[in-house]
Amino acid sequence: MAKKPKTAITPTREEDYPEWYQQVVKASDLAERSPVRGCMVIKPWGYAVWENIMRSMDRMFKATGVKNAYFPLFIPLSFLEKEAQHVEGFAKECAVVTHHRLEKGPEGGLVPAGPLSEPLVVRPTSETIIGDSFSRWVSSYRDLPILINQWANVVRWEMRTRIFLRTSEFLWQEGHTAHATEAEAVVRTDMMLDVYARFVEDYLAIPVIRGRKTPLERFPGAVDTLCIEALMQDCKALQAGTSHFLGQNFARASNIRFQSAQEAEEFAWTTSWGSSTRMIGGMIMVHSDDDGLVLPPRIASAHVVLMPIYRNEADRQSVTAYVDQLAQDLRGTRYHGDNLVVEVDDRDIGGGKSWEWIRKGIPLRVEIGPRDMADDAVFVGRRDRSPKARESIPREQFIATACEILDDIQQQLFARALAFQEAHTQVIDDREAFYDYFTPKNGERPEIHGGFALSGWCGQNDCENRIKEDLKVTIRCIPFALPDGVAGQGPCICCGAPGGGRVYFAKAY
Amino acid sequence: MAKKPKTAITPTREEDYPEWYQQVVKASDLAERSPVRGCMVIKPWGYAVWENIMRSMDRMFKATGVKNAYFPLFIPLSFLEKEAQHVEGFAKECAVVTHHRLEKGPEGGLVPAGPLSEPLVVRPTSETIIGDSFSRWVSSYRDLPILINQWANVVRWEMRTRIFLRTSEFLWQEGHTAHATEAEAVVRTDMMLDVYARFVEDYLAIPVIRGRKTPLERFPGAVDTLCIEALMQDCKALQAGTSHFLGQNFARASNIRFQSAQEAEEFAWTTSWGSSTRMIGGMIMVHSDDDGLVLPPRIASAHVVLMPIYRNEADRQSVTAYVDQLAQDLRGTRYHGDNLVVEVDDRDIGGGKSWEWIRKGIPLRVEIGPRDMADDAVFVGRRDRSPKARESIPREQFIATACEILDDIQQQLFARALAFQEAHTQVIDDREAFYDYFTPKNGERPEIHGGFALSGWCGQNDCENRIKEDLKVTIRCIPFALPDGVAGQGPCICCGAPGGGRVYFAKAY
Repeated sequence: MAKKPKTAITPTREEDYPEWYQQVVKASDLAERSPVRGCMVIKPWGYAVWENIMRSMDRMFKATGVKNAYFPLFIPLSFLEKEAQHVEGFAKECAVVTHHRLEKGPEGGLVPAGPLSEPLVVRPTSETIIGDSFSRWVSSYRDLPILINQWANVVRWEMRTRIFLRTSEFLWQEGHTAHATEAEAVVRTDMMLDVYARFVEDYLAIPVIRGRKTPLERFPGAVDTLCIEALMQDCKALQAGTSHFLGQNFARASNIRFQSAQEAEEFAWTTSWGSSTRMIGGMIMVHSDDDGLVLPPRIASAHVVLMPIYRNEADRQSVTAYVDQLAQDLRGTRYHGDNLVVEVDDRDIGGGKSWEWIRKGIPLRVEIGPRDMADDAVFVGRRDRSPKARESIPREQFIATACEILDDIQQQLFARALAFQEAHTQVIDDREAFYDYFTPKNGERPEIHGGFALSGWCGQNDCENRIKEDLKVTIRCIPFALPDGVAGQGPCICCGAPGGGRVYFAKAY
Repeated sequence: MAKKPKTAITPTREEDYPEWYQQVVKASDLAERSPVRGCMVIKPWGYAVWENIMRSMDRMFKATGVKNAYFPLFIPLSFLEKEAQHVEGFAKECAVVTHHRLEKGPEGGLVPAGPLSEPLVVRPTSETIIGDSFSRWVSSYRDLPILINQWANVVRWEMRTRIFLRTSEFLWQEGHTAHATEAEAVVRTDMMLDVYARFVEDYLAIPVIRGRKTPLERFPGAVDTLCIEALMQDCKALQAGTSHFLGQNFARASNIRFQSAQEAEEFAWTTSWGSSTRMIGGMIMVHSDDDGLVLPPRIASAHVVLMPIYRNEADRQSVTAYVDQLAQDLRGTRYHGDNLVVEVDDRDIGGGKSWEWIRKGIPLRVEIGPRDMADDAVFVGRRDRSPKARESIPREQFIATACEILDDIQQQLFARALAFQEAHTQVIDDREAFYDYFTPKNGERPEIHGGFALSGWCGQNDCENRIKEDLKVTIRCIPFALPDGVAGQGPCICCGAPGGGRVYFAKAY
């Protein structure tokens, strides 16, 4: 018998955080690398999380008046070139379609044929192609606002990829709106950031910092980029969603004009906002532990697994019947507007089953054997507690309280993540202390150190760049609000100039 | 004042069927052409239909044990080449990615750079890339069956495109399953065709013929292709979904092997099955009329539009309050498991509103003015009836029976389409009559003629090809069942050989 490791995942977070992440993804069966460079396969257990994210966010979008639509995968090169900063930002990493068929080459194999007169770029984002439609849809102020969202795949040819966090192809939603006034577009930009923040906090159980990006970190072509930033367990930050106020830049580039109520011809004011499968990467890194994935109940692929335990055929039949009835009762239970998703694992593979479900992160594991049946009780383990901390609960009570237990797990995960974020956020006004904070110490794993530093910044690109070059630390955001008791200003952490606004610095994914 | 046309759509079906189709798509605001060759923009009113199709089909798939996943957009050329017939079938019409960035060219504009060592094909279908994953997921018979579906975009570089019916990029679902035995794979192939047939008949209200394709019409690489075929109002057929039994062809190509219960190493048996946004084109062509789109209630973008009618501000306020309350009551009503979708159109644009909703195909139009309010009644128009045939219904009765009325519309649409299909299906055993049936007569619009011919076929490719060359008529399917009273055999309609099996011939999209 192989020596049992102390934890279900090898290595642990402490031993090798990046490798721990890969092993959690693998052991939980969320996704895998594909033979196509930088592209992933999202397996059913992972795709179910994405389906839950889509369904929940989609409801939130629609509640603000947004409607879904679909625009072409391909963007003509000339469209991308319409906005100078935009093309600059995406030209270095895009998949280019140059031919529209294959034919036998001189060596017998197939080679690209039918060259296109204009190359097509596989969309890295869709401002320009959607802007083209908007220019046709808008002629009067009565046609505004236009509030559109698209669920789609996009491609950015990343050189260094990491599953969910940075992949060449990823799934996302991109919202695009056009408005008659600047004020209305700004309100929409704020509103959608608020939707993201509420979604990530309430569904993914990840506390976030809300703020705006510095000019250097803005979306290419935007006037203002708002973002939410989360802290991972290795003390690095992850941007979990962005909302851009585009001013009239893209309206000019795409010629989105309208006649105002005063009969003047004006350019529209546009916004765009996006979030992606990257959020799943964040969810993994915030909640998972050395036993594997931990799924927040509100977006979990399934909520409960029922595992019948038996030693002989007579037991098997009666236990299975009991479990099937329990599954049926649980599936009839509503949890936040949808039915509970219940798995029944009756594979005859012994005790490894339970560990498999722990690694997969299911919120509730329920074992039922002949003795439990005799007591009309079930033996329940919660994923947010130690694998050993299981308890017997009367069957009826379990059915009646399953949703409350799930909500409690959801709250525990959020509270734990918030405590972690708070413990790893430091107000630092001294440059040496700042450099020390972001430098791994002797004996520490180099991957895990730092956190959020709340420090002053004079507002100069030079200082921002200097910190980035020295430490690979970036300004994650200029926050909308600071924690209670933290002074709004401090000396610039780089040049020492007094009275800089306080911002969030961190290493980041 | 412009002369009022007799119908809301110009031209009518009879006057110019292909142009009528384009005008219905435009007037209903379902979709539009994009500046990218052959690609469409699906507008919110059209995308809502696709969302309803996805939600409904997805439930049906999941009820058979299928789970969703996601696989890469790109397929390495070498993967596509693994199955000889398969690559042959798709090489002539595929988008090829050859570079991964753009850089300044000699003339200042951007040109493709960073050539890929192996070209990537934008998926036209995903058998080979999914087969690669399956080869990793399967090692023992215990890992089987694998039942996967993917909702995705695919690209086939069509030379002649028509919105929804044939576009270079389209949205679809593709199911892929792997099984331990041939029999089980065949059962799954049949099962999924049945899901398609039930979906198209019950939700899209389109009657279909179920059958199998001839060898010449099979999916490239399949052993057997099952299909459902529908008849459009111009008497052409449309294939609305296919389910393929792939034998061990793709398992061999992708090396999907498993150890059987008897410990023998075997290739898996696979299936694939797909349906696409093309179904929306079929829905338009089967149900719409010379006043525009007619949406079957079960997949309608919205079910009811409420239009307040008023002449002065005092009326406006009271009518609007009345209408808002009605909207709220209707939205609380469940229709086949989801809430009724209700639009309120309070734009102050006069009588054109009602015609706009007729063209958009909404099942129920409800007008409410001060007089209706006084009677506590609503004035209801059904899209399956003449625009003038409206009736006053007491408010409470309307709320209580709205779902019944919608179900009645759904049934009427199906019954009408079935009657049309039956009226345009002829048993023909005489070659001259067959040629005559598929030849437009003097004075007829050339686009509208023919229908289904139920005729004998000897089974030879030569005869099938001859009919295709002479008349552009193809064998749509070898049906599973014939209409009551139709003999199962007849002389081959081409060569006259006796005893050919009876098949469905038609011109087709």
